[in-house]
Amino acid sequence: MTSARMLVLSLVASACLASPMLAGAPRARDLGVPFEGRPGRHDAITDVVGVEVGHTTLIRGEGPLKIGEGPVRTGVTAIFPLGKTETAGVAAGYFVLNGTGELTGAVQLDEHGLLYGPLAITNTLSVGTVGQAMVAWSLEHVKDELDLYQRTIPTVAETWDGPLNDIYGFHVKPEHVVAALDGASGGPVAEGNVGGGTGMVVYGLKGGIGTASRVVAEESGGWIVGVLVQANHGTLEQLTVAGVPVGRELLAERSRRSALSPALRASRPRGEGSGSIIIVVATDAPLAPTHLKRIARRAALGLARTGSTAHNGSGDIILAFSTRNRFRPSGSALTTWEVVPDEQFDPLFDATVQATEEAVINALVAARTMTGADGVTVEALPHDRLRELLRRHGRLIE
Amino acid sequence: MTSARMLVLSLVASACLASPMLAGAPRARDLGVPFEGRPGRHDAITDVVGVEVGHTTLIRGEGPLKIGEGPVRTGVTAIFPLGKTETAGVAAGYFVLNGTGELTGAVQLDEHGLLYGPLAITNTLSVGTVGQAMVAWSLEHVKDELDLYQRTIPTVAETWDGPLNDIYGFHVKPEHVVAALDGASGGPVAEGNVGGGTGMVVYGLKGGIGTASRVVAEESGGWIVGVLVQANHGTLEQLTVAGVPVGRELLAERSRRSALSPALRASRPRGEGSGSIIIVVATDAPLAPTHLKRIARRAALGLARTGSTAHNGSGDIILAFSTRNRFRPSGSALTTWEVVPDEQFDPLFDATVQATEEAVINALVAARTMTGADGVTVEALPHDRLRELLRRHGRLIE
Amino acid sequence: MTSARMLVLSLVASACLASPMLAGAPRARDLGVPFEGRPGRHDAITDVVGVEVGHTTLIRGEGPLKIGEGPVRTGVTAIFPLGKTETAGVAAGYFVLNGTGELTGAVQLDEHGLLYGPLAITNTLSVGTVGQAMVAWSLEHVKDELDLYQRTIPTVAETWDGPLNDIYGFHVKPEHVVAALDGASGGPVAEGNVGGGTGMVVYGLKGGIGTASRVVAEESGGWIVGVLVQANHGTLEQLTVAGVPVGRELLAERSRRSALSPALRASRPRGEGSGSIIIVVATDAPLAPTHLKRIARRAALGLARTGSTAHNGSGDIILAFSTRNRFRPSGSALTTWEVVPDEQFDPLFDATVQATEEAVINALVAARTMTGADGVTVEALPHDRLRELLRRHGRLIE
Amino acid sequence: MTSARMLVLSLVASACLASPMLAGAPRARDLGVPFEGRPGRHDAITDVVGVEVGHTTLIRGEGPLKIGEGPVRTGVTAIFPLGKTETAGVAAGYFVLNGTGELTGAVQLDEHGLLYGPLAITNTLSVGTVGQAMVAWSLEHVKDELDLYQRTIPTVAETWDGPLNDIYGFHVKPEHVVAALDGASGGPVAEGNVGGGTGMVVYGLKGGIGTASRVVAEESGGWIVGVLVQANHGTLEQLTVAGVPVGRELLAERSRRSALSPALRASRPRGEGSGSIIIVVATDAPLAPTHLKRIARRAALGLARTGSTAHNGSGDIILAFSTRNRFRPSGSALTTWEVVPDEQFDPLFDATVQATEEAVINALVAARTMTGADGVTVEALPHDRLRELLRRHGRLIE
Repeated sequence: MTSARMLVLSLVASACLASPMLAGAPRARDLGVPFEGRPGRHDAITDVVGVEVGHTTLIRGEGPLKIGEGPVRTGVTAIFPLGKTETAGVAAGYFVLNGTGELTGAVQLDEHGLLYGPLAITNTLSVGTVGQAMVAWSLEHVKDELDLYQRTIPTVAETWDGPLNDIYGFHVKPEHVVAALDGASGGPVAEGNVGGGTGMVVYGLKGGIGTASRVVAEESGGWIVGVLVQANHGTLEQLTVAGVPVGRELLAERSRRSALSPALRASRPRGEGSGSIIIVVATDAPLAPTHLKRIARRAALGLARTGSTAHNGSGDIILAFSTRNRFRPSGSALTTWEVVPDEQFDPLFDATVQATEEAVINALVAARTMTGADGVTVEALPHDRLRELLRRHGRLIE
Repeated sequence: MTSARMLVLSLVASACLASPMLAGAPRARDLGVPFEGRPGRHDAITDVVGVEVGHTTLIRGEGPLKIGEGPVRTGVTAIFPLGKTETAGVAAGYFVLNGTGELTGAVQLDEHGLLYGPLAITNTLSVGTVGQAMVAWSLEHVKDELDLYQRTIPTVAETWDGPLNDIYGFHVKPEHVVAALDGASGGPVAEGNVGGGTGMVVYGLKGGIGTASRVVAEESGGWIVGVLVQANHGTLEQLTVAGVPVGRELLAERSRRSALSPALRASRPRGEGSGSIIIVVATDAPLAPTHLKRIARRAALGLARTGSTAHNGSGDIILAFSTRNRFRPSGSALTTWEVVPDEQFDPLFDATVQATEEAVINALVAARTMTGADGVTVEALPHDRLRELLRRHGRLIE
Repeated sequence: MTSARMLVLSLVASACLASPMLAGAPRARDLGVPFEGRPGRHDAITDVVGVEVGHTTLIRGEGPLKIGEGPVRTGVTAIFPLGKTETAGVAAGYFVLNGTGELTGAVQLDEHGLLYGPLAITNTLSVGTVGQAMVAWSLEHVKDELDLYQRTIPTVAETWDGPLNDIYGFHVKPEHVVAALDGASGGPVAEGNVGGGTGMVVYGLKGGIGTASRVVAEESGGWIVGVLVQANHGTLEQLTVAGVPVGRELLAERSRRSALSPALRASRPRGEGSGSIIIVVATDAPLAPTHLKRIARRAALGLARTGSTAHNGSGDIILAFSTRNRFRPSGSALTTWEVVPDEQFDPLFDATVQATEEAVINALVAARTMTGADGVTVEALPHDRLRELLRRHGRLIE
Repeated sequence: MTSARMLVLSLVASACLASPMLAGAPRARDLGVPFEGRPGRHDAITDVVGVEVGHTTLIRGEGPLKIGEGPVRTGVTAIFPLGKTETAGVAAGYFVLNGTGELTGAVQLDEHGLLYGPLAITNTLSVGTVGQAMVAWSLEHVKDELDLYQRTIPTVAETWDGPLNDIYGFHVKPEHVVAALDGASGGPVAEGNVGGGTGMVVYGLKGGIGTASRVVAEESGGWIVGVLVQANHGTLEQLTVAGVPVGRELLAERSRRSALSPALRASRPRGEGSGSIIIVVATDAPLAPTHLKRIARRAALGLARTGSTAHNGSGDIILAFSTRNRFRPSGSALTTWEVVPDEQFDPLFDATVQATEEAVINALVAARTMTGADGVTVEALPHDRLRELLRRHGRLIE
């Protein structure tokens, strides 16, 4: 138990101080995966100025699943659209590609088209705890009564980490949420087995958090679009990287060696492919709520490029926000919004599709093989095999 | 036939030159019906500066229904948000309370939240003709190619005038649409048996076009909300005026004298109450598309005050637009919208509910008894009985 | 503190054993308020066979508000569509009249059109706690893994009881949720200051839980429609009972005596009228998810009859479900639904409007004057004044 | 003019009697393009029993554009879900990926989830004419009054064929609609420059009508999913075939030779990529309206595989229907639906994605180079280049 506790501490630290990305671990484009468009400085959602991300990663215990004891492979990821101290809201919109999942606050988001305060992503069975902790955190950090009131309906999304994590043990506690919120920062974002993505499985391989960004051409406004995903969806045979059917190729090799882990298959309550993906799109392009719904729909097209068909058991939910216009109850009779006109949207649409595609592949590339509940092991995408398959299809950038 | 033709000519003229409203015919508040809120100058949708309304009224022929020959009791009503010559679009949103009806252009309205050019209301079976004529009219009147392109998906709504009109005779022709468009103007708006409302039946009585407006208090912005309805819905027993169950009282009296017209009951393909109501809400309050959907939903609450339960066969569709921000493809990278902040919306919501309630009652009060197809006669709401019932319930303003 | 604790215990008991309804306290129709339609046996949502309701009522402490200490005026209400032991899902749909509120599980409800397990209504800041406790409760009570999985996204709605309750004290605890779930039963339903409605304010008067039902004519299927509301919305001047402007009349009297409680007005973060209403509609009519959205929209029309214009700060959310078809992951390739055809919906629509109207008025009639945080007192609707006003408008049933 | 008229006659004939498909013209899989899943007998939407398709193709005139005179490159495609003589409705649902387009009847489709009678696809400026002609056709062919009434709001979708066709000449006439309706049949479906797709441009190349189908595995129900597209969207650089960036490769070659047709680029009012795609999905799997919206969303993922990012000026609208349950106003109090349970949907989702992808590529492969208005020539996708590019990327099936 002591060593387990050490493990979690060291991993929380890694999330904040020494992410794979920081430590020089390769990302998808480092491996030669070709992507369209021009990424921002960190190729991360935090390239949108103001956006801050914090992870709490919980990895603890081994051996057979005992509900309440572990093993624990879970966490929480927090995102602030405008940083930890800004209390204004931002314009937002969402799209549900497949709604077997949760996004608390969705009703209010849809009504006003505004997102106040942080949003968090965690495992399915921690949504209530995380939301409650977010309200408590706001009570402590937001002094103005009206600003506080805007935060009383928290925004929490989730995916199911049952195969690897003792999800019915409810291991995410309020202090973990506070840590993710307090630890949020700009700059590089840890990917893979971190935060809410810790125990996630994507396309039959180890998944988790991924991020990417795009910079729109200067003559189209020079806007930045950043994406962060918590990827936990799909089956191996669907996996497509840069148009190459990597999953089917891996499956063909694998079936020559041994059958795909039956434990994993069995451990999904709704069957293989029953996971989910949460996609968060941030942009500094000034957009109205109506427009952010449009942006959100494009992320589905980026997801499709990686092979997803949005299976029935999947909660494929996309939330988009724009950091430019800021909203706060003011008593003024009239406000002014800056807005990119519709006929200038194509570069933003392209950027959203491209950044989403890359963020999903980044999650796969960053994730590491993990053994969790009941001895289930989920393997990481083998980087060398990926490169070889891309090369064979004339798609590797060497 | 000659006299029938004369009839239509004289009535078209009455729509443009000598509406009941202009001619001193009483409106609901003239009869002492109490309404909340303060109306605008004309108590009409045209109180919103820029809004223009035009009717073409077709009344021709008598006797038994011969498909293609008549009798004709129909028409078309055109509304320009910004007047006939302005080609810019306005922010718009709609709400479908019950969707057994048509609103062409709905898909595009929802995507961009913009309404370009005129909208028209007619009978169900003339929607195609009216839309096609609107495109042709734009081709003639809009010179800029991009402005013209914005108008190529026309906005047409409808209700069913089958009981009184030879609806399968397709009597609305392109020239009637052109006349309504060309004849549109600001100022007082003809109500009752005019334009698209000519042959309509509301709450079992003669219905048609009605309008009303509200002025929001100066300290709340002083905005104007105008409503125009084409009312063709409901059953007599539902009719409620100022909270008084007028319909049930009339029904009680009527059943003591004679049965309700079986012809009328039979003539609705989906049964009594299968009509519809189109509600158009205009405002000069600067609102974003998201907000106009919210406004549109409030019109349903105003409709409810008149007794409607939105029956299954009814197309109860509400379209709201704001004239303040103007939209035109410009090539600029950034535009500015003025927007009333959400926390200032309550007076606009109240105004929408109130103006909708009054517009429906105005349609009833203005309509005149009409005999149409197969000898069906639909009686007007008897003004004296209305006043007596209001008095008996302590609701008449004397 | 001891007496306070006794108070809460006695009130919890009253919710289960001796509701106002059971104790002979009058309901709206007992006072002579006229309503349309025929109510079911208990005039309650539980007239729909299988529906069970449980309340936990928390009333404790007095004096000035100290966050964390009280006074406590809150609770939770649980509703099981099919009773506590049935694990199947039911068809469901919702409508958001105004979305300044929360309905967790909304995304999944919309995707599948199914509601699994209980739903709960509480105060805004207890949504996370209540949801988390519901998942834990299911973990204990639902044995089948797939059935359990269906319940992992709980359905929780809320309204804000800030003016009377120490809402930032987070006084609803998991054990209170368990008590409401365990205590759920059929039969008469306690109304007024009970359960989630304990501290609620409606139309400026004391509100809370209300319920009603309607039985559709035998020739229209004989179906039952039951409604339960947690009413916390509107301003006094809006209140309309049976078409009579009761609120304005009371306000006129009140302003002759003394100003309306400024404390109450000040205590709403978004201003007067910023409350909300949650409406739950149950029916045994076999309906598909699409149809239940249609039913939900009609409840808004019933709400409108009581005067609401759905203010900006109000979370006016309606959830409808049908108990007839039962859903459970079965592995079968094909299932069969019984469905009332659309053209038979009008009686169901009428029933929904009527039962919603009565449920709101029942909440008002059952609620008792309450003093809460910061000495704010919210008065109950005075029954004698109500009767007098109805009589004066020829609407009292004597 | 005489020869022009002969041209149109011969092409109408070719649509009915001698489609490219029938004539042995290769389809995408004939060229060795790899697709997932198993196609039905004709690899066409008509593999769903009952579905009938009819095209009227209008090709007439040459030389510079004279509005009203031509050249004419347009048409109309009609689809009957249950064949020409069946009057019952089917369950249906739609999804708007990008709504810069039209789908008449959308409001009613959404309300009832039912599609009555045929649907048609044409050019943007013929929607009214086509709808009006469909109502007239129904008046002639549907005898039962209620059945006829169900058809009075026609379902018409469109894409813009401006670059090649004299679209403002309104060349689609009622008789052309009647011909498409009367000529509808099962069996092989003509693709490419036919029907509504005659003048369409997809990914910068000649597009039009395409179709494909998938058969779900017997153990998953053995259902058939058929797709028909009218493809008119995207830019050349987006075009992706079987994951291979064919468009960018062609563009690279082309830019080495000569610039991309500036005429084409200029001729789109909203710029390159401003076209649209209409996707119709048919299935014999028994599904409820809610489910068909889910199916419709999957078609967007299939479209994404071909490279689309759903540009701002594009009307990307997907309509899905199920032929199994049949709806007709009957007066019965209760009906029965057969429904595939949600947990069996994945094979249907996969099939929809796969058939949509193939239908788009089939449209490209079948289309032929066309010269239209103002001498604009749009080239067909060169089959040999396609094969070479697939081979180079290890994706050609030889």
